[in-house]
Amino acid sequence: MVMDLRAYIRDIPDFPVPGVVFKDITPLLGCGPAFHTAIDELAARTRPYTADVVVAMESRGFLFAAPLAYKLNLGFVPVRKQGKLPAEALSVEYALEYGKAAVEIHRDAILEGQRVLIVDDVLATGGTASAAVSLIEQLGGRVAALAFIIELTFLKGRERLTQYPLVSIIEY
Amino acid sequence: MVMDLRAYIRDIPDFPVPGVVFKDITPLLGCGPAFHTAIDELAARTRPYTADVVVAMESRGFLFAAPLAYKLNLGFVPVRKQGKLPAEALSVEYALEYGKAAVEIHRDAILEGQRVLIVDDVLATGGTASAAVSLIEQLGGRVAALAFIIELTFLKGRERLTQYPLVSIIEY
Repeated sequence: MVMDLRAYIRDIPDFPVPGVVFKDITPLLGCGPAFHTAIDELAARTRPYTADVVVAMESRGFLFAAPLAYKLNLGFVPVRKQGKLPAEALSVEYALEYGKAAVEIHRDAILEGQRVLIVDDVLATGGTASAAVSLIEQLGGRVAALAFIIELTFLKGRERLTQYPLVSIIEY
Repeated sequence: MVMDLRAYIRDIPDFPVPGVVFKDITPLLGCGPAFHTAIDELAARTRPYTADVVVAMESRGFLFAAPLAYKLNLGFVPVRKQGKLPAEALSVEYALEYGKAAVEIHRDAILEGQRVLIVDDVLATGGTASAAVSLIEQLGGRVAALAFIIELTFLKGRERLTQYPLVSIIEY
């Protein structure tokens, strides 16, 4: 990669809570060439896993997963927060840093045996990604790989996902 | 357009509230060729307006706007629900069918005089789109065009936006 994508990630101290330094991806999104490079890099790194469909988490995951699905000529399946999906959905709870949340997927969105590429903007503790894995496997899908723009390596999310190929573009 | 994208939009009765028939776009997203065709069609119809940047509303708007920005080689700026954007944001309130909501944009996301393409999945009453227009114009941007996958013509959202070019792919 010739372009240094790291230059387009901005640190925001004390967001969303005091003491946390938030990695803001909006400068990367806002710069056409940087955004394009990030998607092309994701595509090059994930194409070898021959996924049938891309799954992403609401809502920042959508920003990278939808163009990646377009680039790879694949369909896209959203995992959304509870109550947002209109048809029959499968739900899973997962732990947040403070409290818990539930995410859902349409029951008819993944076919038995489909190879699924899971995409999100940031890999932190791996809680959200593990929830997505659980939804996909409950529906009979197989996780082909997981891909992230940013990996916060000090949070060790990768250690919860060792049985799957895992791609990240920028590590901190 | 050779492919009939309308075949990939599913009616869900009584969602999100009784009496409403929801237009579910997930079958269109889930089918690679249909999703690809929708983005290519959006790109062909919006390229003539020579936008500098794409703006979209959280979160279903992201699903079409991010691949469109990728395809058009433009940057992407999110309009998000209150409290989600990490840097200094401009906020605007708008009326919902029941109650009101606020959406925000980063103050540094739009430059004076930039030509902005606003994208969302559905044009209904035009309330959300008008809120996005207001944010962009307050920041000194110019609305190059608005583009939607679905236009619910009976809700007359277009009549609130007559001063701008407006593209929709599927009309009901």
